[in-house]
Amino acid sequence: MISTDLAIIGAGPVGLFAIFEAGLLKMRCHLIDYLPKVGGQLSELYPKKPIYDIPGYPSILAQDLVENLLEQAKPFHPGFTMGERVEMLEKRGEADFILTTNMGTVISAKVIVIAGGLGCFEPRKPVLSGIERFENGGGVNYMILNPEQYNGQKMVIAGGGDSALDWTIFLSDIVEELTLVHRSENFRGAPDSVNKVMELAGSGKINLALNSNLHSISGYDRLENVELIHNESNEVISVATNHLIPLYGLSPKLGPIEAWNLNINKSAIEVNTEDYSTNIPGIYAIGDINTYKNKLKLILCGFHEAALMSHSAYQYINPGVKYTMKYTTVNGVTEF
Amino acid sequence: MISTDLAIIGAGPVGLFAIFEAGLLKMRCHLIDYLPKVGGQLSELYPKKPIYDIPGYPSILAQDLVENLLEQAKPFHPGFTMGERVEMLEKRGEADFILTTNMGTVISAKVIVIAGGLGCFEPRKPVLSGIERFENGGGVNYMILNPEQYNGQKMVIAGGGDSALDWTIFLSDIVEELTLVHRSENFRGAPDSVNKVMELAGSGKINLALNSNLHSISGYDRLENVELIHNESNEVISVATNHLIPLYGLSPKLGPIEAWNLNINKSAIEVNTEDYSTNIPGIYAIGDINTYKNKLKLILCGFHEAALMSHSAYQYINPGVKYTMKYTTVNGVTEF
Repeated sequence: MISTDLAIIGAGPVGLFAIFEAGLLKMRCHLIDYLPKVGGQLSELYPKKPIYDIPGYPSILAQDLVENLLEQAKPFHPGFTMGERVEMLEKRGEADFILTTNMGTVISAKVIVIAGGLGCFEPRKPVLSGIERFENGGGVNYMILNPEQYNGQKMVIAGGGDSALDWTIFLSDIVEELTLVHRSENFRGAPDSVNKVMELAGSGKINLALNSNLHSISGYDRLENVELIHNESNEVISVATNHLIPLYGLSPKLGPIEAWNLNINKSAIEVNTEDYSTNIPGIYAIGDINTYKNKLKLILCGFHEAALMSHSAYQYINPGVKYTMKYTTVNGVTEF
Repeated sequence: MISTDLAIIGAGPVGLFAIFEAGLLKMRCHLIDYLPKVGGQLSELYPKKPIYDIPGYPSILAQDLVENLLEQAKPFHPGFTMGERVEMLEKRGEADFILTTNMGTVISAKVIVIAGGLGCFEPRKPVLSGIERFENGGGVNYMILNPEQYNGQKMVIAGGGDSALDWTIFLSDIVEELTLVHRSENFRGAPDSVNKVMELAGSGKINLALNSNLHSISGYDRLENVELIHNESNEVISVATNHLIPLYGLSPKLGPIEAWNLNINKSAIEVNTEDYSTNIPGIYAIGDINTYKNKLKLILCGFHEAALMSHSAYQYINPGVKYTMKYTTVNGVTEF
């Protein structure tokens, strides 16, 4: 069992900065995120995009901000459980919580901090009869966690955004056959990536099915065949494949947290702005996942919330202990 | 008369970031600061010190943060009135304020934002009978605004910190005679600067009076003589000089703001954390100068306060106008 002071659900920018603020108060953090890597929306949705509204950065690439926040958190030795989703929460007493993930990882914590951004990002799924049958190891995946598994395989990727384009380019080198299906003639991704994909199609390294949708899938134990339908001609073509990867983007969901008896308002957790605590003592919510009067969904607001939360969590864990704030400019950052 | 949307009193990091947040909402800002240059405490007290608690910066020099904030504010063309202190505030109606500085500059603004940090920094003064007589143009100055005026002059600098050391080094080249007086034998400044000052004294370029205090000053129309007294021997020496610059550091004072009928609590302005508004509609207070339950005097908290203040100020200026927030990551930053 993992044991920590603060269990932080969500490893986006605000969760990462909470490590630093909690660390200055000598509290240790363990972060859990359903995504396979840290950074939340920044890393998952727009790693290469510049952000302009981080104070002190006229412009910074999203992924660079994530790296800097990780570096800033490093002296406080955070723990991470990535690629797992927190499913169950049990409050056994004050400053005594148990979290369990979908993979059975158990984390004991004194304080729970929900920094889940817009919630769990769940993949948008195509409407295809029987698709669930192939979802768990049967050939249909909505994320590519381990690209090597497609070595020498036949696969179909569906989608027209950066994810679909980038993975098509990356995997075209190692697969035996790759078909990219997109409902439109125009891609939404970076022009550079679009050009590369068109070149790959031109040279016959990949098959391109534009103006086409997934029509049906079939297979016995696992996926064996995908049918595509053309939007205008309604012509159906059949592709023999063991792998279908629909990359239709991620859709935010509050997920299992909804069952924890927290006060929820329009998919966000209501908090007290005095310390960003929820209605359950010992549970806090910071960043885009919380709501209060005049809430702005800005990263910089989450940073402030992380700071006030940390000081309140310190009081919750150490009731009655008087803490004198030390400024890092005077004292520096000390590892512990 | 200067006319603006937001008059921001204080050009420290929080005031500077408010330009950006207000700018995204198409509101123009004019900043007024008693210090001669922007940056507030960062530039005045510790420009070369690394700061560790700015989110996304594992370490940044205070002055570099100021430069970056200025750069970030630039697309929104802020105005500045530096080296002047706001003395008078008049509210003529809703969204109609007039500010007047000690130099007679008049600023008309729809909203007043007090981002004054710890207040006006007033110089700590030596206790010397009759010193006021020489303060305004009579030879006694507590800041060096225009170093060239000491060209070929005789001067006495008092103090043992970085300011006293740095100015001594800088001015030693251009003055006719310079005496540095310090009450102790040890300086508090950077070791490198201390070494340079000791060398200058060793080579006879400056006079050093250690373990000594200012004893008395005299002169007819303007300063003519300063007497120094040795702490142990009580020996008094007389120095003929037209300039005395006591550099004993700056002491924060709330200043004229105290008379504006704002709710004040222990030298800080009480605000509503929903939007960091004060008890007077149209006047906001952000950063170290405000207070509320669980307030942390951190720059990052001031950034959040600047963001929420800007959205509230927009509503105050444009009552009933619905504003849809645009994210800079999606839309970029547009000058206007």
